Amino acid sequence: MSPHSLPPAPAAYRTLDTDGIRAFLAGVPTLATRLGGPAAHWRIREVSDGNLNNVFLIDGPQGGVCFKQSLPHVRVDPAWKMPLDRTFYEAAYLREIRPCVGALTTDILHFDPDLFVLVVESLDRHVVLRRGLMAGGDWPDAARAVGAFVARGAFHTSLLAAPFEEITRRLDVFSGNRTLTRITVDLVLTDPYRDHPRNHWISPDLDGIAADIRTDPHVRRRVGAMQARFLTCRQALLHGDLHTGSVMVADDDTRVIDGEFACPGPIGFDCGLFIGNLLLHLFACGDSAGQDRAVRDIAQFWASFHDTFGELWRTATRHDGNGDAYAAALFRDDPSGLQQAQADFMRDVTADTIAFAAMEIIRRIVGYAHVPDFDTIPDRAARAGRQAAALALARDLLADPDIVTTIADLESLARGRAR
Amino acid sequence: MSPHSLPPAPAAYRTLDTDGIRAFLAGVPTLATRLGGPAAHWRIREVSDGNLNNVFLIDGPQGGVCFKQSLPHVRVDPAWKMPLDRTFYEAAYLREIRPCVGALTTDILHFDPDLFVLVVESLDRHVVLRRGLMAGGDWPDAARAVGAFVARGAFHTSLLAAPFEEITRRLDVFSGNRTLTRITVDLVLTDPYRDHPRNHWISPDLDGIAADIRTDPHVRRRVGAMQARFLTCRQALLHGDLHTGSVMVADDDTRVIDGEFACPGPIGFDCGLFIGNLLLHLFACGDSAGQDRAVRDIAQFWASFHDTFGELWRTATRHDGNGDAYAAALFRDDPSGLQQAQADFMRDVTADTIAFAAMEIIRRIVGYAHVPDFDTIPDRAARAGRQAAALALARDLLADPDIVTTIADLESLARGRAR
Repeated sequence: MSPHSLPPAPAAYRTLDTDGIRAFLAGVPTLATRLGGPAAHWRIREVSDGNLNNVFLIDGPQGGVCFKQSLPHVRVDPAWKMPLDRTFYEAAYLREIRPCVGALTTDILHFDPDLFVLVVESLDRHVVLRRGLMAGGDWPDAARAVGAFVARGAFHTSLLAAPFEEITRRLDVFSGNRTLTRITVDLVLTDPYRDHPRNHWISPDLDGIAADIRTDPHVRRRVGAMQARFLTCRQALLHGDLHTGSVMVADDDTRVIDGEFACPGPIGFDCGLFIGNLLLHLFACGDSAGQDRAVRDIAQFWASFHDTFGELWRTATRHDGNGDAYAAALFRDDPSGLQQAQADFMRDVTADTIAFAAMEIIRRIVGYAHVPDFDTIPDRAARAGRQAAALALARDLLADPDIVTTIADLESLARGRAR
Repeated sequence: MSPHSLPPAPAAYRTLDTDGIRAFLAGVPTLATRLGGPAAHWRIREVSDGNLNNVFLIDGPQGGVCFKQSLPHVRVDPAWKMPLDRTFYEAAYLREIRPCVGALTTDILHFDPDLFVLVVESLDRHVVLRRGLMAGGDWPDAARAVGAFVARGAFHTSLLAAPFEEITRRLDVFSGNRTLTRITVDLVLTDPYRDHPRNHWISPDLDGIAADIRTDPHVRRRVGAMQARFLTCRQALLHGDLHTGSVMVADDDTRVIDGEFACPGPIGFDCGLFIGNLLLHLFACGDSAGQDRAVRDIAQFWASFHDTFGELWRTATRHDGNGDAYAAALFRDDPSGLQQAQADFMRDVTADTIAFAAMEIIRRIVGYAHVPDFDTIPDRAARAGRQAAALALARDLLADPDIVTTIADLESLARGRAR
């Protein structure tokens, strides 16, 4: 898949089985203490759910940890070889954003650079938001928490928050995350818009709309621009894979996990992936109450992101922040000027969000990695019909940027199309 | 000036005087051979003209070379300390772009990483374009050559030309050019829009317009956005200081020099600086024929840039190029779609160009480093009047992005205002 040759795995690397994991954890005093008791009593469960890594939860008498290890290939496709560095980038991402998002993500407990093992807090009382939504659950605060997560992470890694020397140095680390960025470029931004053997969909039901998306000149023009936007616009450090499967929820707690796709990019990419996955859920959702909740979640995510980001920016300006973009000196004495500048800025983020949401919908129905949300619809024709409606919305959003220019309009349009 | 501490100069570093330069060149066989004859016969002339480095031309019986050495301070202000790495970045820039721009820049002959000495082709039959224009000279092909230079350098370092892995790796080198990028951020993008002791202008004549620019809410809003654009939009490798003093001309030859400000950024920054300096010349120019030539040069620069860039892009698409933005697969069979995508792309580059041209005009009249073009006007009041007209144009361009949306409109408006 990658045009680049694979670096050799470090000599010390080996994929750990449960015995290996037990010995590894016992050898790290802080982790052994956290788990408590003799290592032989620790319960080790594999919970690998994503496509890439081995993930285990370990419970001891005192507490639990989550153990994540990179494999030298894609977990679900051993023929697809891949370098090991993705847990390095996930650890680096946690170190960057944990100070500004606090308990909206997991605490990093340990990283081993030889084994590419990352150990973080265990979230064993949480469920994956996507799975919870598919089961008809409701977490009224989750979307708001994710919005705050994106706003805080993005603001504090942007040129609004610090001088360019510092921001560039921090973002450049993640330029090295080439393997996973290549996956995003291929699977999200490129493959669905060309004939590619990795693409698949319910055929022949969706053949027409899939071909329509591939050949519509307006869609292609917009997709080309969004490819450039993702790769050239370094607004902030992105999570890079912020779908509903990257969010863990409990009744009173929301955590964003799985930051291994972290890369510099446009803030609307994170917003667009999250909203795109809520829209996928909306279209997969059979009942009106569930659809209402999906729309509410989109609205709350966006309001939370928008307001939190704006407030961080206003505070930095008031306190004479030293960011080099929209320098504080310009707006310190001009709150209404700052308000207008923020509106300009958010107009661009909104446009990016809508376009990336549309591209996420498309790639999750006709690309390589589909979402399971539609699996709740047992009838194949009905499933294809819901997917076709989602695809048609996405196509229309890309073909005509003026069809929807606010997230509120997006909610209304999607709600109408999903009925 | 820099918020960062200065790295110590390498132990081997010393500033070379003419004897030191002679010994240095004699010690590099390729350079000694190029000069020819005994070293004692070489003629060494200091030609330092820019603000930063020592520059000497050396002539021998066989040929000449240009010797450039970084100083541990700004050449024209020894109290302003500065790291030595700028010749490293200039050498790196030449290595990047020389393969795609050929003889539109100088060949790099030698780089010494201890002494921070860069030796390039001597251009002793050339004159600096700015000085030539000020003397009333005319180089009908120069602007076209500079347009081709920008187009080729930008295209081949952009995501239109190569996969992101390669482009990111190449651009990230220049993220390290923090000292000179800080100068751009402060002197070009920030200081003229705040009270700062480095700012100066013909006072009291220009006090009003300078204050107007600093306080106009529409100008501030646009300046804020352009600060963000310069620092977050990594479209290509920029020259970074492409004014008319960075271009050397002979009757049949044009070369762009002084790439030490090279950094990743929006392509319109290079275009805007060059056009901004031609506009400064236009406003400084007393005679109608000279003004006509300045307008012609702007038109030819832009046509050359626009057409060369578009043709490189079309060719890459036809040949199934592997750039990740506007991927070839989208447009290979759709030339009219590509044409529209190019129009979208160029609309953004044009908007950037106009805004950065305006900011260049402003900083060259009220900021730290002025242009000498206006020195040809002996009468102080007349000089201030021409400068005020240039500033008013720049202010209007920033305050209302719709006043001018094409370079042709910019030419007309400027020509009218400069009369």
